[in-house]
Amino acid sequence: MISNTSNNSTAIVLMHCPDQKGIVARVTKFLSDNNGNIIYLEQHVDNQAKEFFMRIEWDLEHFSIPQEKIADYFNTLIASHYGMTWNIYFSNQVPRMALFVSKMSHCLFDMLARYQAGEWNVHIPFIISNHPDMEPVAKQFGIEFHLFPVDAKNKQDVEAQEIKLLKDNNINFVVLARYMQVLSENFIEQFPNKIINIHHSFLPAFPGAKPYHSAYERGVKIIGATSHYVTTDLDAGPIIAQDVAHISHTDTIKNLIRIGQDLEKIVLSRAVYAHLQRKILVYKNRTIIFN
Amino acid sequence: MISNTSNNSTAIVLMHCPDQKGIVARVTKFLSDNNGNIIYLEQHVDNQAKEFFMRIEWDLEHFSIPQEKIADYFNTLIASHYGMTWNIYFSNQVPRMALFVSKMSHCLFDMLARYQAGEWNVHIPFIISNHPDMEPVAKQFGIEFHLFPVDAKNKQDVEAQEIKLLKDNNINFVVLARYMQVLSENFIEQFPNKIINIHHSFLPAFPGAKPYHSAYERGVKIIGATSHYVTTDLDAGPIIAQDVAHISHTDTIKNLIRIGQDLEKIVLSRAVYAHLQRKILVYKNRTIIFN
Amino acid sequence: MISNTSNNSTAIVLMHCPDQKGIVARVTKFLSDNNGNIIYLEQHVDNQAKEFFMRIEWDLEHFSIPQEKIADYFNTLIASHYGMTWNIYFSNQVPRMALFVSKMSHCLFDMLARYQAGEWNVHIPFIISNHPDMEPVAKQFGIEFHLFPVDAKNKQDVEAQEIKLLKDNNINFVVLARYMQVLSENFIEQFPNKIINIHHSFLPAFPGAKPYHSAYERGVKIIGATSHYVTTDLDAGPIIAQDVAHISHTDTIKNLIRIGQDLEKIVLSRAVYAHLQRKILVYKNRTIIFN
Amino acid sequence: MISNTSNNSTAIVLMHCPDQKGIVARVTKFLSDNNGNIIYLEQHVDNQAKEFFMRIEWDLEHFSIPQEKIADYFNTLIASHYGMTWNIYFSNQVPRMALFVSKMSHCLFDMLARYQAGEWNVHIPFIISNHPDMEPVAKQFGIEFHLFPVDAKNKQDVEAQEIKLLKDNNINFVVLARYMQVLSENFIEQFPNKIINIHHSFLPAFPGAKPYHSAYERGVKIIGATSHYVTTDLDAGPIIAQDVAHISHTDTIKNLIRIGQDLEKIVLSRAVYAHLQRKILVYKNRTIIFN
Repeated sequence: MISNTSNNSTAIVLMHCPDQKGIVARVTKFLSDNNGNIIYLEQHVDNQAKEFFMRIEWDLEHFSIPQEKIADYFNTLIASHYGMTWNIYFSNQVPRMALFVSKMSHCLFDMLARYQAGEWNVHIPFIISNHPDMEPVAKQFGIEFHLFPVDAKNKQDVEAQEIKLLKDNNINFVVLARYMQVLSENFIEQFPNKIINIHHSFLPAFPGAKPYHSAYERGVKIIGATSHYVTTDLDAGPIIAQDVAHISHTDTIKNLIRIGQDLEKIVLSRAVYAHLQRKILVYKNRTIIFN
Repeated sequence: MISNTSNNSTAIVLMHCPDQKGIVARVTKFLSDNNGNIIYLEQHVDNQAKEFFMRIEWDLEHFSIPQEKIADYFNTLIASHYGMTWNIYFSNQVPRMALFVSKMSHCLFDMLARYQAGEWNVHIPFIISNHPDMEPVAKQFGIEFHLFPVDAKNKQDVEAQEIKLLKDNNINFVVLARYMQVLSENFIEQFPNKIINIHHSFLPAFPGAKPYHSAYERGVKIIGATSHYVTTDLDAGPIIAQDVAHISHTDTIKNLIRIGQDLEKIVLSRAVYAHLQRKILVYKNRTIIFN
Repeated sequence: MISNTSNNSTAIVLMHCPDQKGIVARVTKFLSDNNGNIIYLEQHVDNQAKEFFMRIEWDLEHFSIPQEKIADYFNTLIASHYGMTWNIYFSNQVPRMALFVSKMSHCLFDMLARYQAGEWNVHIPFIISNHPDMEPVAKQFGIEFHLFPVDAKNKQDVEAQEIKLLKDNNINFVVLARYMQVLSENFIEQFPNKIINIHHSFLPAFPGAKPYHSAYERGVKIIGATSHYVTTDLDAGPIIAQDVAHISHTDTIKNLIRIGQDLEKIVLSRAVYAHLQRKILVYKNRTIIFN
Repeated sequence: MISNTSNNSTAIVLMHCPDQKGIVARVTKFLSDNNGNIIYLEQHVDNQAKEFFMRIEWDLEHFSIPQEKIADYFNTLIASHYGMTWNIYFSNQVPRMALFVSKMSHCLFDMLARYQAGEWNVHIPFIISNHPDMEPVAKQFGIEFHLFPVDAKNKQDVEAQEIKLLKDNNINFVVLARYMQVLSENFIEQFPNKIINIHHSFLPAFPGAKPYHSAYERGVKIIGATSHYVTTDLDAGPIIAQDVAHISHTDTIKNLIRIGQDLEKIVLSRAVYAHLQRKILVYKNRTIIFN
């Protein structure tokens, strides 16, 4: 392997398959035979499930297979051989992300600040909300804002419009930045492992509504935040990132909310960053997060 | 107030009552009128419950009321006036603690090491266990070991013997150091807020059996430990201390157990220390832990 | 004491003096005699320095001394009696804060987001910078931006203009949000314990320039951020808040900077919040941070 | 690769060399050609130093090269080809560790408790001390205790005797469990990266004596502990593990010591465990700690 710190385009493969002999040897030989300098390789074996996971990234500069043919070759020569579930990404294809918000600004500001500062390699074409409150923030950052008020009656229609908007704009993934609506099964199933949520507790404790109130009531000494992929099982999807803060009896519910919001925004942004870096694999409702 | 770093005997009062005007002024005046130098005063008001809490400690050296009469005077002159729930403790009366264990040694070793090093102001007359495994550890530290094998049939009898042993030996509080038996309501009710347990998860997540297995299954990114007073509601008593460790997909269940045991022993010892320092008040299933 | 959750105006006194008998009793009696309901009282005794510290906050609604006379009465009746160093603040007087920045946006965005969301009780009349980079951010949030390019030659003049601007605008305190200039002694001495800085390491490790590079070089397993009041001794002022993150050998310097920026912004905002809440006392280059 | 959870003997190679193409492919091919099932592979590239690092562990059960010849074959067929610095370890060869202590028991108890519980795959033939205080603890755990009182005059002689004792007993590495003596250059140079120390601060802050006193004096809001390999440069060797605890103005020096001792013992035991697991590589005074 040859280290690489240049800004060349790279290819990233995320893969998993039943554990077998010789996978690493075969993949690395394929790349080195075709002049692909490996920049990063991390593998993991789940000994309980007997499943093999790998993330590999290589420089495309001198790679002898043209970018548009790599997927086909990889599939034929490697993936099909091992029965791999896999995806390939290219660093020169910037992912497109949509933000869903309701009334709170802390997660939204945190992500837009990173976006504007160029910290993330992403496009954010628009923000969707069920309330008008965040429109001024969208405007401040020069991002389109789409208002879709939702109620029990119009939910199906509204979601249909939202899905159309997402698809028409080639959105790759959605981030729910304290979006206070439960998405329907239909919506969720169209974006498997492509909707990232932030929940304001250390799951699986305090799922559902008002976790800070429940935390206060229970008298816990830590509060937390959890970012996860959304599945049809509420607050039970694969966890990407979690963090906690210590609290004490002197902290009122108002304090828990204030302290918790700092956790929420940092944990959500960490999760989005890992997703953007193509560092996450999902397997049986658990995540593998490469380094 | 006059600071004090001498090793004189002190009195400690833990109190709470409905919030009213002038409590601090009256208590501090009572002490200063009787030449009691305050070493420590911390008060807390729960604005939601409108309840006032205080811990106050003062030097007995020049205090003009004899130690054996303080409780009576305090009750008449202060506590009854405000409808206080309160307790008084004296630093020259060393508390007596019983340890309950089963098969695991990590919490036991941690506490006995502190005990032997003189880190804690406590007496540990004996260890009780439902298994013989820890007898050699008890012997190493020169502490009596009582074996009480428990099964569904003999549980009531065994608990009766244990309670008798505790009472005959004037045990003030019990610590369950990974004791793998659920105590009966009868047992628990005889030691209200006097049984400290360690649970190997960040409660209220993963109560009951095998929390590390559940944590692995759920794919959480943190694991935790919780020390609490035992109530008749399983793993739902007032929380004293909690802590967590970050884990990753590379951690097997075996790793979670290994990492978690370090949390368990430190969190349990922290809780016991706070209890020994008379820093804990319980109110409505929550704890106030003074600094 | 009577708890209070109303939104009435309050007075806050921060005080310290040599430890003496009866201080708490006298202060609380003064307040209760004049119908001042105490909302918050926290005291601390530094047993080594024999110094007493207190923060007390009370409701002004039924307080029988008019707001404009409280300072005078408190001084005569209490403070002068004990030789107190003290300050009084009123919740109905919103503090005025100036932000100094250079080229980085993360701390600036974090504070302006809180400001815009109404999380802080503060006015930010303007931002000062030695570089034009952050002008668009100031504009986004509708805040005046003053550019003062600094070099070795003009430093004295520029600082004189800055000080004039701060004083003409009745600025109460200054926050250096990764401002990459060392302020002169003259500047610092005009704002004692009124300039809050964020340093990107866990001080006292890695003071001065390029702490992330030094951290990488030294091979530490944690990085940190420290917020402190600026004194004439570089990076050696009283510490207000610190936090750390765990890192590993896989983290490049670029990663350290990225991870560290999240620490910096949260730690700085925590420090500013404590300052705004009037929770900080400085004594002998150390801070007392009330709960 | 084939996962393995059996208890077969394994071989572990830790290696590093200048980064080159094809290393992973060649090593994994060598193992799979000889029927060695890889249990664990983790590699790391230091892009700044252009150095490649790897830890690889494989099952010996069906491996076609006899254990005693593996080192020779690996050297000829792989290591010499790439100019590797490397070491091989076998899980069926239990490492031998010596403990150095002075007067404090907390780290000693923590390690002996793990040792007795079978948590670590290690032999501890004896404890060396410059004070008699810990002899009873050694006796409790049935471990030989060697007393070597040291003063300025006899230091050279005593160290010579200690080194002889270590070598005669085939000691593989030494752990300084709050051993309050500085070892000579001569001693240190005979055990490169084989002496693990615990320092009671977050290095590089507060090196040398009395770090808790310095931490108190400086008014830091966190304290820490650092485990590192000992080099001839005091408290400046490669860092293995670090952790911190938050403290406040209410914590006296005595409290810092008490809180810090919990950090010290956990951090030191974590470092020893990583060393025993053969997870540590040292390169240019920094450590690579594999997962």
